[in-house]
Amino acid sequence: MSADEEKPSLPVSFEQLAELEDDFEQVDLELTRVQDKLTKDLYVKREKIIADIPHFWNSVFEVAPEEFEHAFKETDGELLLALKNLFVTRFDLPEGDPRSFSIKWEFEENAFFEDKVLEKKFIYRQSPKGDVSGLVSEPVKIHWKPGKDLTNGLTDLVLKVHAEEKAGKVDEETDAKKELKKKIEDTPLGDLSFFTWFAFRGPRITEEEHKESLKKEEEKRQLRKAGKPVEDDEMEEDEEDEDDLFDKAYEYEPYPAADDQALCIAEDIWPDAIKLYLQSQEDDILSEFEDLDDEDEEMEEDDKAEPASKKRKA
Amino acid sequence: MSADEEKPSLPVSFEQLAELEDDFEQVDLELTRVQDKLTKDLYVKREKIIADIPHFWNSVFEVAPEEFEHAFKETDGELLLALKNLFVTRFDLPEGDPRSFSIKWEFEENAFFEDKVLEKKFIYRQSPKGDVSGLVSEPVKIHWKPGKDLTNGLTDLVLKVHAEEKAGKVDEETDAKKELKKKIEDTPLGDLSFFTWFAFRGPRITEEEHKESLKKEEEKRQLRKAGKPVEDDEMEEDEEDEDDLFDKAYEYEPYPAADDQALCIAEDIWPDAIKLYLQSQEDDILSEFEDLDDEDEEMEEDDKAEPASKKRKA
Repeated sequence: MSADEEKPSLPVSFEQLAELEDDFEQVDLELTRVQDKLTKDLYVKREKIIADIPHFWNSVFEVAPEEFEHAFKETDGELLLALKNLFVTRFDLPEGDPRSFSIKWEFEENAFFEDKVLEKKFIYRQSPKGDVSGLVSEPVKIHWKPGKDLTNGLTDLVLKVHAEEKAGKVDEETDAKKELKKKIEDTPLGDLSFFTWFAFRGPRITEEEHKESLKKEEEKRQLRKAGKPVEDDEMEEDEEDEDDLFDKAYEYEPYPAADDQALCIAEDIWPDAIKLYLQSQEDDILSEFEDLDDEDEEMEEDDKAEPASKKRKA
Repeated sequence: MSADEEKPSLPVSFEQLAELEDDFEQVDLELTRVQDKLTKDLYVKREKIIADIPHFWNSVFEVAPEEFEHAFKETDGELLLALKNLFVTRFDLPEGDPRSFSIKWEFEENAFFEDKVLEKKFIYRQSPKGDVSGLVSEPVKIHWKPGKDLTNGLTDLVLKVHAEEKAGKVDEETDAKKELKKKIEDTPLGDLSFFTWFAFRGPRITEEEHKESLKKEEEKRQLRKAGKPVEDDEMEEDEEDEDDLFDKAYEYEPYPAADDQALCIAEDIWPDAIKLYLQSQEDDILSEFEDLDDEDEEMEEDDKAEPASKKRKA
């Protein structure tokens, strides 16, 4: 949303639309809560079934939505073959926020790292003025085997910077920050391992700021319900805050697409995993057919795919 | 889904996956029911607010998802300016099927047709063997003003064929059918008016066949719940049925994309209308800015968009 003076022609008040959007958002949250409750047992049932399918999640990621296009490099693919299981949990439910979730990756023994489980939590936060919201995450330590760090030190550097900021060095430009910034600039996108995803941090919004924001939001809601006028925060200041939060986040973020990909896993890949798996198997069969096609006569293949009697449409 | 022999490598039974998919489908239906209940009042509230916004739905369709790319021809756009209101109703709820819905278009007095309201119902049906499902619809009569039929007679021809089929001439190739088929073949996609959408009929599945299908499905569900083996219908026959149903549907279907577009309206455009409208307004402002940009010096425009002090990123 942009500042008020940029939409002079809107014939209804911004406040009316904001209230309506808020109402719909509340329904969406409630629906996610209901969905979580209704599907919980089904995901347990699914887990048991897919445990018998080798490389299930690897196959699913092969046909994942466009968010994952070019995401996996060749060595990433090798490592993904060791992916044994994947879980998405809306850990804050039933009481808390349905927008927060965790993605747990279980790996078999592999040549790249020591970890058996890598779990990354994405926590929904909004800024005090409610104009910035997003998924915040702690960088996850990966215990790479010697010489096997696919992220070329990026994940470790983010962890170092994160620890420094936690120790209070938020605005200080430390050596680690300089090094991280340089490494990000020097890494071509084509060389960026998907596993850098685990280092994502997101916008710098603290839990306190988030709680303050929720409180303000609820106060506005009550005012609106009571039919009282709701003060808009000064818009220009908001925009500066917003820039600040994103600048801070992205300057030291080697993998800024991580939150979109996390949402894609939670909202599309996780619920649709069986469909995607079946699709990957069909794709495999199709490409086998295509291979045959290259070897055999073209007419022969054509007959195999569709009996002559059924060719009613030209 | 393809026949059994085409996926020899699946390490779990097709039946297990089908059961799981059925479970998830049931949850999805339940969620649509809950959503309908929770949003009903909100849509009434929204209607009152957007009544004050001229060309609201027209603006929304300008930024509609890709299903509507190239859907509206120039004259369609003229007619769409007379679109006063749009409603989506899941008319079969709360008791019936959440997958059926109607789209009601309200028009102002216009130069093209006499109708004030055009309502199209999309009814969910599945074939007796459960292998074909889709949205079935009756073609809607549009009372075009003389010489103003944007569909060039296509909608009326579909209505004629539909009436003939209702009168028993299902497999007979009547003159009207021949004419319709020829007209479809002779109409370039670039000339096809969006209003042909109202003529869509979908796969030929009767209510009786649908009910039989639901009954069979429920029987299978009960067998599975009781841990008893479930017979799969003979797959090869199914595939022929499937071809048949689609052939019949598409041979006399001038606008086969109509069901996808209807789903897009019901699932995306209708719930996201406010967001889409705001986006269309922002797009308008952006293109105004771009126009300015062409006129003014580039640097000047640059300064307007972002104060110099905030340019921290190169």
